Amino acid sequence: MTRTIIASATREAVIGFDQPFCVIGERINPTGRKKLAAEMSAGDFTTVEADAIAQVAAGATMLDVNAGVTSVNPNETEPPLLAQTIDLVQGLVDVPLCIDSSVPAALAAGLEVCNGRPLLNSVTGEEERLEVVLPLVKKHDVPVVAISNDETGISEDPDVRFEVARKIVERAADFGIKPHDIVVDPLVMPIGAMATAGQQVFALVRRLRNELQVNTTCGASNISFGLPNRHGINAAFLPMAIASGMTSAIMNPLRPQEMEAVRAANVLMSTDANCMAWIKTYRAPAAEGGEGGERRGRREGRRRRA
Amino acid sequence: MTRTIIASATREAVIGFDQPFCVIGERINPTGRKKLAAEMSAGDFTTVEADAIAQVAAGATMLDVNAGVTSVNPNETEPPLLAQTIDLVQGLVDVPLCIDSSVPAALAAGLEVCNGRPLLNSVTGEEERLEVVLPLVKKHDVPVVAISNDETGISEDPDVRFEVARKIVERAADFGIKPHDIVVDPLVMPIGAMATAGQQVFALVRRLRNELQVNTTCGASNISFGLPNRHGINAAFLPMAIASGMTSAIMNPLRPQEMEAVRAANVLMSTDANCMAWIKTYRAPAAEGGEGGERRGRREGRRRRA
Repeated sequence: MTRTIIASATREAVIGFDQPFCVIGERINPTGRKKLAAEMSAGDFTTVEADAIAQVAAGATMLDVNAGVTSVNPNETEPPLLAQTIDLVQGLVDVPLCIDSSVPAALAAGLEVCNGRPLLNSVTGEEERLEVVLPLVKKHDVPVVAISNDETGISEDPDVRFEVARKIVERAADFGIKPHDIVVDPLVMPIGAMATAGQQVFALVRRLRNELQVNTTCGASNISFGLPNRHGINAAFLPMAIASGMTSAIMNPLRPQEMEAVRAANVLMSTDANCMAWIKTYRAPAAEGGEGGERRGRREGRRRRA
Repeated sequence: MTRTIIASATREAVIGFDQPFCVIGERINPTGRKKLAAEMSAGDFTTVEADAIAQVAAGATMLDVNAGVTSVNPNETEPPLLAQTIDLVQGLVDVPLCIDSSVPAALAAGLEVCNGRPLLNSVTGEEERLEVVLPLVKKHDVPVVAISNDETGISEDPDVRFEVARKIVERAADFGIKPHDIVVDPLVMPIGAMATAGQQVFALVRRLRNELQVNTTCGASNISFGLPNRHGINAAFLPMAIASGMTSAIMNPLRPQEMEAVRAANVLMSTDANCMAWIKTYRAPAAEGGEGGERRGRREGRRRRA
């Protein structure tokens, strides 16, 4: 039973086949959020602080922290800014963190300051990345997100993406990194642009779990890019991915519809013991059970008569 | 590619692995609805008529019709009442119907009056049922719902339920009935009473599809019996069952949350061509795409920088 252990200074979380779905809060990320990028560049962490507290209150298992405020000179700006942001966030909330950067020096700087056992986000199948990031993973004994693209880009062929994931797992093994410390992102394409995007992910997640025994994650909201009522698509995608074996997602925990879908999927995968989290969250004073009794009665009544 | 053809006098529908999920409207069923039972017994079909029209307007692919108003003398009352109800409903709406009774004489009476190619609901693995219902199925050349319980009741062991389904498929074959005309109901237990109920159904549906090549259905709302916020559980269960291969459900199409989940699952299973049904239903005037552009930008922006 694959289990990826992550931890803050005081709190441990587990990503695993037998665990409640791991919600990795995506909000602390200035990429594409111009206002947040400007704030963070100016040393203003008001929004970061608010996002950290709100995401944990909304039920995030862990928080992703990204400080990609600019693409001009990220090698200079991002390492100190990411370290500073991590330090700030871990002083505010006690959930484990996910150190998110495409700049290896920023990953290294984040690892130096981060307490506990953070998740490193990410390595890809690109040779240059493998050679730089895997030694960091080994040195700090942390788990890592492995994105299934390589020098050739993102393949539209799921078999190619699976092979990239397998390559990363094998290369990690050469460094003594175990599969349970690799969380594969099979890459979620927008369903509006690629009709098979959903089925590809479901099939890939199943293969990654059965054949490589790895945990999985994804940027869940990509699936609904460009469509109306995105939350409706996301709220179906997450349970479908979970039924296929996905064990975590980088997502927005402030969205009630998506979080309700995740909580319900936990009930249905039997990772919410005795439905306690569900009942605690949604217990209603009204007679919900009465309606249920009626519905069940229809089929049961028929069998009794038969 | 398994396809079950059902039809009214003027309209055909297909249950199949490559088809949009088939929503079988459950409302016209007096079992457990005392007021409706009293109305129908008194020859008042006001509610039946309203339920027929509303369910089709809400997007039902077909309608289940049940006239089980009493358990006292169903063999006398149910055949004429079911025939009358079917006649009324098919005069009002043009979707195919599902003839629902545990009384064989009522199934026969329904088949006599029903136009097109209705779905017969149901046969079980009980010998007595098989011997009475399968000849009706053969005689009228209609598809049939096969419920996976037998003389011993409903097994909690999914392997036993699978074997009951296999037995029904084999017995049907003896009558010349093809697997594509059998829609198996693997039986959905309440998750609040049996923690593995969800996983059992998902695994069973997958096996039924892969090993027996049959379509599947279920009484979907049973899963949430006894829990608060049942619609939230149902709305996650349906996409999970669909991702596992389920192709239809007997459910309430008047529930927007469940129907949104089904429509989203159709998008994600690529059975809603070009997302047209989704876009038509949920097209919003506001700038939903803008938000999406931002989110997608985060990961894409990172890759460009990398």
